[in-house]
Amino acid sequence: MTDVFQIVLAKRPVGDVTADCFRKETAKLPALNDGEILIASRFLSLDPYMRPRMSELRSYVPPFELDKPLTGGSVGEVVESRNPRYAKGDTVMGLLNWASHTVHDGKGLRKIDPAAAPLQANLGVLGMPSFTAWYGMKHICKPKAGETAFVSAATGAVGQVAGQLAKLAGATVVGCAGDEQKCQWAVREAGYDACFNHRTERDYGAVLDKLCPKGIDSDFENVGGKIFHEVFARLNNFGRVAFCGAISEYQDKDPIAGPPKMFTIVQRRLTIQGFIVSDHAAMLPEFVAEVGGLLKAGKLKSRETIVDGLAKAPQAFLGLLKGENFGKLIVKV
Amino acid sequence: MTDVFQIVLAKRPVGDVTADCFRKETAKLPALNDGEILIASRFLSLDPYMRPRMSELRSYVPPFELDKPLTGGSVGEVVESRNPRYAKGDTVMGLLNWASHTVHDGKGLRKIDPAAAPLQANLGVLGMPSFTAWYGMKHICKPKAGETAFVSAATGAVGQVAGQLAKLAGATVVGCAGDEQKCQWAVREAGYDACFNHRTERDYGAVLDKLCPKGIDSDFENVGGKIFHEVFARLNNFGRVAFCGAISEYQDKDPIAGPPKMFTIVQRRLTIQGFIVSDHAAMLPEFVAEVGGLLKAGKLKSRETIVDGLAKAPQAFLGLLKGENFGKLIVKV
Repeated sequence: MTDVFQIVLAKRPVGDVTADCFRKETAKLPALNDGEILIASRFLSLDPYMRPRMSELRSYVPPFELDKPLTGGSVGEVVESRNPRYAKGDTVMGLLNWASHTVHDGKGLRKIDPAAAPLQANLGVLGMPSFTAWYGMKHICKPKAGETAFVSAATGAVGQVAGQLAKLAGATVVGCAGDEQKCQWAVREAGYDACFNHRTERDYGAVLDKLCPKGIDSDFENVGGKIFHEVFARLNNFGRVAFCGAISEYQDKDPIAGPPKMFTIVQRRLTIQGFIVSDHAAMLPEFVAEVGGLLKAGKLKSRETIVDGLAKAPQAFLGLLKGENFGKLIVKV
Repeated sequence: MTDVFQIVLAKRPVGDVTADCFRKETAKLPALNDGEILIASRFLSLDPYMRPRMSELRSYVPPFELDKPLTGGSVGEVVESRNPRYAKGDTVMGLLNWASHTVHDGKGLRKIDPAAAPLQANLGVLGMPSFTAWYGMKHICKPKAGETAFVSAATGAVGQVAGQLAKLAGATVVGCAGDEQKCQWAVREAGYDACFNHRTERDYGAVLDKLCPKGIDSDFENVGGKIFHEVFARLNNFGRVAFCGAISEYQDKDPIAGPPKMFTIVQRRLTIQGFIVSDHAAMLPEFVAEVGGLLKAGKLKSRETIVDGLAKAPQAFLGLLKGENFGKLIVKV
């Protein structure tokens, strides 16, 4: 029997997530059954989509269960195997518990080469957030030279890649982020043409008018709410919105309504498309080839925040929902 | 010089259109220049999209000009020609003035065969409204067997065709309309599985839950506002909205906001696409072949209201915005 340290969902949040929604536990894991493997987690990805899973919303993934460990995209090492497809010492990636160890049936895991890239890159710039950015840009936003592309949460795990891909496609790229340091990184490192601080700018409409004088042709939407309303009002004819997330709504008991003047959708022939990257898993090889190539060529920068120790995951997650992290947020387990 | 009776835009409406926004005039038309033709209008189409053109909105067509005749899709007869492409007696279709006669340069007109169908059919079931329904269904809603398709303004010029096309595609089709007689026609004649009266039903959510127990897979949206909110909340995963119009907003000084919980777009991977059929004119032959074939085969019913006399056009248009017409509204000039 293995001792496990884990974090379980103690109660469902109403409105803001609070620390008491989580409970830290130690437990004993049972011996493995045939077909099972025991994985020691190395890195855990924290992502905004976990917030809706804490509630009992009808969502695209089932809600987390009460009194059971939360789960998240993780990289880990097989420490014991009764499954012929995995050997002790294999490095694997997949959905693991917020825990030191997870017993797993091996389904949905992917073996990775630990020498190919830093382990945690598989959760960020080579992983799900980057795949999300690539899908939304390539298949929905389709930015091109002469156009203006907007990215909300410009330096987040998804946004930072989305913005760079739009820039590589030749568009003028404008974003917003939650502090000056992030905005500076966006412009100096990630190549955004402009990035405004949505905490200090009071009039989103005015700043968008200034930074996007020719209107907005595509919007990679991570935030929703008031920023989205102002972006929506400035979309050009045939504008595209890749609706990836709406972090501004996740904590609201009574989220802000959609933008006024929905007839704008007709007048300007807008396409607003929601997507979840797991629906498009068949495109993963194409993504890996393209984005892996950009990384090797040094054409894609990334920024991450690594939190040391699983015990700090709840606090880091609360910070994520308030935009306190900078870039991809990862827990070193 | 020809005497012309015409209706001009006397003032721009704020909120509801009123009769004094229009002015009836008689005037003298100048002699034709080289290249011009004189057309006597026979039928004028009245359509909801004309309402936004009365305001100074940034829209997809320029606003009507003050003190000039309004224009609309029309069928007319060439009574004089100084353009080699048109001969006296030709029947033509295109954008003509709300007037007994229009001087025209011939551009954008289409010659039609007056023997092929009743003249006014070119403005309805063989014309722009039907082309609109066909494009939105075929290229955005894509209804199929096993799915539920919703059509707001179910018996309007566009909706009546949209609903029948969805039914022919095998979907369960539900609509709403503004009186009992229309709802009955929708079910008995146009083949809708159900149609509710949005003036007497108070709880749109409850009636949609009852009529669409498996949710809604596609929405052909003509109305917007509260009905759209309730439809949006019931869209299934991968649901499609063909946003064609939002008549509920046209008269509002302060239109209702978009639906709450925009994150739904992500959760259910919705696509909301606005469109204007004139962008897709290249598909007109395909539409004519398909829908013309259905008409010949007796598979498409249509309903129209013909108002006798151009002088009645303003009043008929006010009624159109209140849903008083039944089916395609046409003025016999």
